[in-house]
Amino acid sequence: MKVLIIGASGVLGQAVSEALGPHHELILAGRHSGDVRVDITSEESVAALFASVGRVDALVSTTGSLHFGPLAETDSARFSVGLNDKLLGQVRLALIGQHHLNDGGSITLTSGILSEEPIRNGANASTVNAALEGFVRAAAIELPRGLRINAVSPTVLAESWEVYGPFMAGFEPVPARRAALAYRRSVDGAQTGRVYRVTA
Amino acid sequence: MKVLIIGASGVLGQAVSEALGPHHELILAGRHSGDVRVDITSEESVAALFASVGRVDALVSTTGSLHFGPLAETDSARFSVGLNDKLLGQVRLALIGQHHLNDGGSITLTSGILSEEPIRNGANASTVNAALEGFVRAAAIELPRGLRINAVSPTVLAESWEVYGPFMAGFEPVPARRAALAYRRSVDGAQTGRVYRVTA
Repeated sequence: MKVLIIGASGVLGQAVSEALGPHHELILAGRHSGDVRVDITSEESVAALFASVGRVDALVSTTGSLHFGPLAETDSARFSVGLNDKLLGQVRLALIGQHHLNDGGSITLTSGILSEEPIRNGANASTVNAALEGFVRAAAIELPRGLRINAVSPTVLAESWEVYGPFMAGFEPVPARRAALAYRRSVDGAQTGRVYRVTA
Repeated sequence: MKVLIIGASGVLGQAVSEALGPHHELILAGRHSGDVRVDITSEESVAALFASVGRVDALVSTTGSLHFGPLAETDSARFSVGLNDKLLGQVRLALIGQHHLNDGGSITLTSGILSEEPIRNGANASTVNAALEGFVRAAAIELPRGLRINAVSPTVLAESWEVYGPFMAGFEPVPARRAALAYRRSVDGAQTGRVYRVTA
């Protein structure tokens, strides 16, 4: 299958590329690197991505920015960071991508454990991740032509523990290669509307 | 208690006002009517609302617009309707409102059954409602001074059945006065981080 990975240069994206690489033809996309460049916050950029890549069998997104900070200091401008980037950015990939997938193709987005397990400073992440899971549940029942859509919700990655660990006391990180297996299940499996939760 | 209701003139807002009215001092707010006017999509308007109302004991929101339409025809501009209005509008009320609540006060937002039970044309609603529930779970653990936050997730209202019924075959509507009881539980109870699901 031809698989387009957006966010391919990140910790998670690299692990997903390694997991899928032996089995599929990969096209790696990223904001600053990869076979093709894309800014998921831009309608034009995402449209250009699919125009240049052509039809694919699977679209995998492992990207998106969030706002982290105390709720008491959060205003709607800061809160919009996650809404415009990780949430609407990934939704945009799906909304445009649905028209560029071969029959039976799949979309796999990335949410995260904070949707269910909130932490201090994480309200934006909890909101965005829960939103993506709601989107996947709904989009799954409406996609035609056997198209599927799932989300992977990983806990904190071992490779990112140095950054997020101080905010996530007691959480048990997983190696990115374990999280990557869930993307393989989504791409190569037959389920739709699922949230694959990856925890230790 | 002094209770500020935003969206007070809507079907749900009227029922909530009737349920809370005998027990509390109400301030009714709305876009086009009420004791005070507010546009929840505007940072300035929400700031002005709280400046004019002063400190309150409870903030209840029963408002917010969504996009309904086929997924295949949805673009990110249409999808942004719900993100900017029902989602960020209510989050904005909470983010600004947290600084204008008396100790032990509460915030009650409105999500909706589509967060869990998707329908055709409802991807925006499912996303926004799930997002609000994620926000409530996260904000609840960070609010200081005994402040609480909950969401009410009603199924379709009997009073709105004529509009939404054709899209919700097999759903069982509830009268708005039943949904209003959940707001009373949130305002007068002691729970926080809860989603009160109101179904038939």
